[in-house]
Amino acid sequence: MPIYNAPLADMKFILNDVFNAEQFWQSNEKLAHVDSATAEAILEEMAKFAQNVTLPLNRTGDEEGAHYENGKVTTPAGFKEAFKQYAEGGWIGLGADEEWGGQAMPKMLTVLADEMLFATNPSFMLYPLLSVGAGMALNSYASQEQKETYLPKMYTGEWSGTMCLTEPHAGTDLGIIKTKAEPNADGTYNITGTKIFITGGDHDLSENIIHLVLAKTPDAPAGSRGISLFIVPKFIVNADGSLGERNTAGPGSIEHKMGIKASATCVMNFDAAKGYLVGKENHGLAAMFVMMNYERLSMGIQGLGASEYAYQNAAQYATDRLQGRSAQGVQSPSKPADSILVHGDVRRMLLNARANNEASRAFAVYVGQQLDITKFSTDPEAVAAANNRVALLTPIAKAYLTDTAFNAAIDAQMVFGGHGFIREWGMEQCVRDLRIAQIYEGTNGVQSQDLIGRKTIKCNGEFIAEYIAEIRDFANDLDSDLNFIKDATLDVATEIEVVTQRIIERAQENADFSNAVAVDYLHAVGLLSFTYMFARIAKAAKAKEGQFYQDKLALTHYFIQRVLPELSSRVAKIKSGAEVIMSFSEDYFTTQA
Amino acid sequence: MPIYNAPLADMKFILNDVFNAEQFWQSNEKLAHVDSATAEAILEEMAKFAQNVTLPLNRTGDEEGAHYENGKVTTPAGFKEAFKQYAEGGWIGLGADEEWGGQAMPKMLTVLADEMLFATNPSFMLYPLLSVGAGMALNSYASQEQKETYLPKMYTGEWSGTMCLTEPHAGTDLGIIKTKAEPNADGTYNITGTKIFITGGDHDLSENIIHLVLAKTPDAPAGSRGISLFIVPKFIVNADGSLGERNTAGPGSIEHKMGIKASATCVMNFDAAKGYLVGKENHGLAAMFVMMNYERLSMGIQGLGASEYAYQNAAQYATDRLQGRSAQGVQSPSKPADSILVHGDVRRMLLNARANNEASRAFAVYVGQQLDITKFSTDPEAVAAANNRVALLTPIAKAYLTDTAFNAAIDAQMVFGGHGFIREWGMEQCVRDLRIAQIYEGTNGVQSQDLIGRKTIKCNGEFIAEYIAEIRDFANDLDSDLNFIKDATLDVATEIEVVTQRIIERAQENADFSNAVAVDYLHAVGLLSFTYMFARIAKAAKAKEGQFYQDKLALTHYFIQRVLPELSSRVAKIKSGAEVIMSFSEDYFTTQA
Repeated sequence: MPIYNAPLADMKFILNDVFNAEQFWQSNEKLAHVDSATAEAILEEMAKFAQNVTLPLNRTGDEEGAHYENGKVTTPAGFKEAFKQYAEGGWIGLGADEEWGGQAMPKMLTVLADEMLFATNPSFMLYPLLSVGAGMALNSYASQEQKETYLPKMYTGEWSGTMCLTEPHAGTDLGIIKTKAEPNADGTYNITGTKIFITGGDHDLSENIIHLVLAKTPDAPAGSRGISLFIVPKFIVNADGSLGERNTAGPGSIEHKMGIKASATCVMNFDAAKGYLVGKENHGLAAMFVMMNYERLSMGIQGLGASEYAYQNAAQYATDRLQGRSAQGVQSPSKPADSILVHGDVRRMLLNARANNEASRAFAVYVGQQLDITKFSTDPEAVAAANNRVALLTPIAKAYLTDTAFNAAIDAQMVFGGHGFIREWGMEQCVRDLRIAQIYEGTNGVQSQDLIGRKTIKCNGEFIAEYIAEIRDFANDLDSDLNFIKDATLDVATEIEVVTQRIIERAQENADFSNAVAVDYLHAVGLLSFTYMFARIAKAAKAKEGQFYQDKLALTHYFIQRVLPELSSRVAKIKSGAEVIMSFSEDYFTTQA
Repeated sequence: MPIYNAPLADMKFILNDVFNAEQFWQSNEKLAHVDSATAEAILEEMAKFAQNVTLPLNRTGDEEGAHYENGKVTTPAGFKEAFKQYAEGGWIGLGADEEWGGQAMPKMLTVLADEMLFATNPSFMLYPLLSVGAGMALNSYASQEQKETYLPKMYTGEWSGTMCLTEPHAGTDLGIIKTKAEPNADGTYNITGTKIFITGGDHDLSENIIHLVLAKTPDAPAGSRGISLFIVPKFIVNADGSLGERNTAGPGSIEHKMGIKASATCVMNFDAAKGYLVGKENHGLAAMFVMMNYERLSMGIQGLGASEYAYQNAAQYATDRLQGRSAQGVQSPSKPADSILVHGDVRRMLLNARANNEASRAFAVYVGQQLDITKFSTDPEAVAAANNRVALLTPIAKAYLTDTAFNAAIDAQMVFGGHGFIREWGMEQCVRDLRIAQIYEGTNGVQSQDLIGRKTIKCNGEFIAEYIAEIRDFANDLDSDLNFIKDATLDVATEIEVVTQRIIERAQENADFSNAVAVDYLHAVGLLSFTYMFARIAKAAKAKEGQFYQDKLALTHYFIQRVLPELSSRVAKIKSGAEVIMSFSEDYFTTQA
């Protein structure tokens, strides 16, 4: 039976010691209702929910799966009750505006609450997650009337939300979607088309489902500049807010997948379904990107949650499993063998995961803080800087945190030996459930293109230069007894600066260059980010006394010596360029000689 | 529907051009019955079997799974007929001695036949694989009478074989097994105990199953020096070779696993089952290691097969999938988008897999040739050298080829985007099925300990020094127009030489050192091995004309520029040593502050 103990001490350390969250909140008028005690109480409540409600449903949800029959999706046993409890606890609107019934909690805090739910039951978490994302898009772009109609009930969980982008022939390339929106005389539209991979496209958790659908109006320009966003409710909402007739929008089937089996991934058929335009025609992608950017950080949190869950279970297994003897001599003479924790290779796998978790958590809170600045700060310069930072780091949060989490989960599974492959231990499900986080909401390859293209080359490296400047300032302020991390941080910053300049230059010479080296660049910037996070962790730990803080410093040493060396191979691959990749003919890849 | 086209051209290139196999075979009296025409005919026949028989059963086998009921295991629909056809084709005994009905084909060739079956249906392949491994152990250690009784029927497929090592509390550490063997007056033994993770422990493919079981006699010494090997047939074999009474050995259940679901992984209960000692008491591990070493190379082939299958499907998908436009301008103006092969990042993933496949295949044939020398050569010096080489490279073949194959399969899955997560495309099954290859037959961590410990430190680096000497000789003989690979090969050889020396020295100072850096060392030696293989591929390709050979050189460039840079981070991690890993207390790993 897999375990999970919410890492509350680590979460509090990150909030209180590393980021001085209370001071940040109290200094901002719009966040002054939050203090450390409130934040900690929220985390403790969520920990109980995750440990007692969603964790026990994780394996049964996987075994049973979401179920499709006669045009309806049912969720696994227990999901409906858990969702009700989650909704009644006010969790869906934890970060939403009070105007719509939310609790207006900062993102710095909600990322930690999300982590616990993703750790214990990623399939479950996806249902409210999509509601929250849809709510954000509506909050930014919908009319006042639309907000009043939909948002309050989405945050109570009476209704839920989806995002309907992908079509069978169009995933990354949304410019070629075919779903049509034909205007009616009353200002509504008839939406017709097929969407695939729609998370929570149908289910039995809420009374109504509010689909946000990308479609093209008849005279829309070709490509991504001709895409509009529509609200397409499962049930039409009457003027008094009650539910009217069933819309002609519903699931055609659900996908059979590698993992997240309790999350219904629907093929959605829209057959002249009634839709309501959100914002202006042909400006749908911008609205959808509000939602997408939110989801992208969330996928990073999915990675972190899974990696923490995997780590805890592997660490417990390694402690309990007796096999072989220490090379230093017998450690547990009264037992038939020593714990496998005596083996350095087992520790290596566990420490990789743990270093990943602590750096990922700090990074998630850091990006959360930047998002909070964009939302709550009254200083236009601070908002502008934070917007740049969020733009730069969103692809890192999505792709780097899920790539490293997957490696951590794979390592944790290996700690179990053959038992890692067996269902009952839970590790194989963890790996299967996590794998999608690298793929959906824009594959990690697409995130890398976003980072190197729009976020770096396009602005001539401005965003990364600002980030490096902050990191340098921080490192230069470190005391000399933290020279080991100070020097490493400054070295990595310079290395990224140099390689970024090289990328900007070579991209001008060869249009294929950036695409070919993008993933390596994303990982290089990810390593810089984790180094920076460990510098912040080390500084906070150094200021305290006790084993807990000593261990933070030891883990920082581990990261520098055993993880950061990956940077050298990333940089070498970037330097190799695109020619060696693009020189092959297209036929080469499939030709059997 | 997943595709598979046996890579016959590449296989022939490796055999004929890279390794001059016919010359090698014809120069050896015991292999003089093999020529290129025979070898190619065998590969072509196996290709048909793999494409037409096992490939179509791969997904259905996964969906249906092996089934346990009332003490019996049934295999998925079609497996029985396929096994019969495989057995009747003489495939089980392809590499077995003619004396027992085998075809006495060299390992250089059988590894390629195995690759095709592992590519198309790893679950199926495991059934005959265990028979062949059990046959090898019996051939080496059983009495003449035992061989006559069991081997011929195992090679016809009338009977099959298993290896029963693992117990609930004892996997890597076989010294603490509890299964007991009590001697009877008639020279037989009563075997009592529980074994787990027994591949093919029961099934409906053959009339009898010959279990090779590790157990301890009552007065056996403690630890691994007190383990004996027993034949425990499912049905007792009468003196005339007919089947007698049912032995008290059978499955108690089967495991529910992440993958290879059509392969029955059994809990086996032995309840005073009749057993026959193989070889001498307390010498069972040596016999089992004959089998284990065979299986370990086979697991590497499982990796190669899966990686080839993943590559082919991803390359086809990438060719067919239209999404986005080339950075160089529109490539397919008549289509709504270009093929995703225009994107360097997609090519990177495909080329990683392809480079892995071609180097892995060459390496498997190389190790196969070394095994053939040990078996067929009459030159004692050559046999001794080849034995050292096989000892050194078996953990590389098992662990490096499965680690790199898993990465390749993960990359191939990513090429599919969201479709990679959906069952019908076959990629998610490929990943699930492949994952076990890194775990079973000794985890890849255990392989790394074997490489760095017994195979390197224990012999003071003699085996790796001999290997490096061969590689240097080969590289030094390369023409100057191959300087790019010549220089890389010589550089890597020196780097490995230096790091090996460092390891031997530091292992003396710190008993924990080798365990902590073992996996990094295994990957470093793996990179050396692949570099060597590409040097051999490049030399063979350079001697020929045509696009096929030009592409081999281009792939060699790719490997040097885009894969080999990983060596630098491996070496840096080795240099960091064990202290940073071992400094944490055991409590650290599970304590929640």
